[in-house]
Amino acid sequence: MKLSIVKIGGNVIENKEELSKFLKAFSELDGPKILVHGGGKLATQLGKRLGIESKLIGGRRITDAQSLELITMVYGGLVNKNIVAELQSLNCNAIGLSGADGNTIQAHKRPVKDIDYGFAGDVDGVSAPTVSKLLEAGLTPVFCAMTHDGKGQLLNTNADTIASELSIGMSENYETTLYYCFEKKGVLMDVNDDASVVKHIDSQSYQSLLEQNVIADGMLPKMENCFHALKRNVHQVRIGDIGMLDPKSTLFTTLTL
Amino acid sequence: MKLSIVKIGGNVIENKEELSKFLKAFSELDGPKILVHGGGKLATQLGKRLGIESKLIGGRRITDAQSLELITMVYGGLVNKNIVAELQSLNCNAIGLSGADGNTIQAHKRPVKDIDYGFAGDVDGVSAPTVSKLLEAGLTPVFCAMTHDGKGQLLNTNADTIASELSIGMSENYETTLYYCFEKKGVLMDVNDDASVVKHIDSQSYQSLLEQNVIADGMLPKMENCFHALKRNVHQVRIGDIGMLDPKSTLFTTLTL
Repeated sequence: MKLSIVKIGGNVIENKEELSKFLKAFSELDGPKILVHGGGKLATQLGKRLGIESKLIGGRRITDAQSLELITMVYGGLVNKNIVAELQSLNCNAIGLSGADGNTIQAHKRPVKDIDYGFAGDVDGVSAPTVSKLLEAGLTPVFCAMTHDGKGQLLNTNADTIASELSIGMSENYETTLYYCFEKKGVLMDVNDDASVVKHIDSQSYQSLLEQNVIADGMLPKMENCFHALKRNVHQVRIGDIGMLDPKSTLFTTLTL
Repeated sequence: MKLSIVKIGGNVIENKEELSKFLKAFSELDGPKILVHGGGKLATQLGKRLGIESKLIGGRRITDAQSLELITMVYGGLVNKNIVAELQSLNCNAIGLSGADGNTIQAHKRPVKDIDYGFAGDVDGVSAPTVSKLLEAGLTPVFCAMTHDGKGQLLNTNADTIASELSIGMSENYETTLYYCFEKKGVLMDVNDDASVVKHIDSQSYQSLLEQNVIADGMLPKMENCFHALKRNVHQVRIGDIGMLDPKSTLFTTLTL
């Protein structure tokens, strides 16, 4: 059976109108589906109001105890429950989850090497049977970017990673397509030309795009994540803006092995 | 089949040690079970830090848009996800829910009469089949005190009410016992004597207790709630402190019709 796993970026979360447009398109996707979201800058904004400073090193959040509280409130509460309520109004029977709920995503606290990332979780595995039972019950899981260590500790985990690990775990029983929604229409040949979408990338063309420096900076870890998932039996990865959820759309990047 | 539905009060939520003691006892309850919690004063405390004033009229919260955000963050996020993570560490496969998740509890915004309670939700019904599917999947639902109107609006609903409505809804398929955990050992003949627990109350003895003024003030709506549930097929209601979850305990009040 086919399964769609869609990850939305922080820029969609922060814009109420964009989010509504996205949720409508998501609710209309055929077949079983899963949504994965982070919280973007909303946690940082709440932190400012509470006098809690957000610490980032190399773009990655240092999750101290106070930051973890913020994330738990914003990702697990505010963002997750509002998305669920809005999906319900669109006749999509959503159920909001962290990786602790149903023990769906197990992780461990990232070991301290050069940098102490605090309560950051590296994923160990996904409870695919539990997620499958939810899907079979007609529910649409909505995951926030949180996991747990099984010993009572919640952990902050990157939403891209959660989406790819979920896709890998679910690919045992489903033909899984992973959608990464972000602000661009896909991988662009010319970063200033939205129409220059590379429609299809496989392992071979990926190498030549790397050599041509088409894929660089923020796109690199995203693409590594995608190929990691494809190598572990995820059927297909699509990268684009929320327009790619429209069944008639062809303007996005498809990745296969 | 038997089902236990346990509601914990705010005083337990606010005390980390008490909460851990309670969660351990809850995790050891035999058979399928459901936990219902509010958030006590934690939302009010966060509100103070954010400069959001909590408005109460006659002990009931007036839920304006800002208060609803607070509640969504604190009840749905912070409290709910931490309880779930701790239960997971106790080998209890908890899954955190608001009434919006899985459309489990439908409500409508309380109509404005003398007082505008804002985003307060009066319960219309419970999706017992969905909750049953979660229980059958070996999951333990943990409900926060939130519902939704099916049109995208989250609502704040009293945790006692959620517990009793869930018990009523689930009694179609389960022999349901509803536990109200609070700070006292049960209904007391003498409010200053913790040992003066009335062990059993039925509709008849309830009337005489009312006439003797044993049941007054805050206890009255709680008791009305209990008998409302019993009249609608809930098997039994128990009132006491967290000690009553110990199978050997006999010091609590049992209510039957």
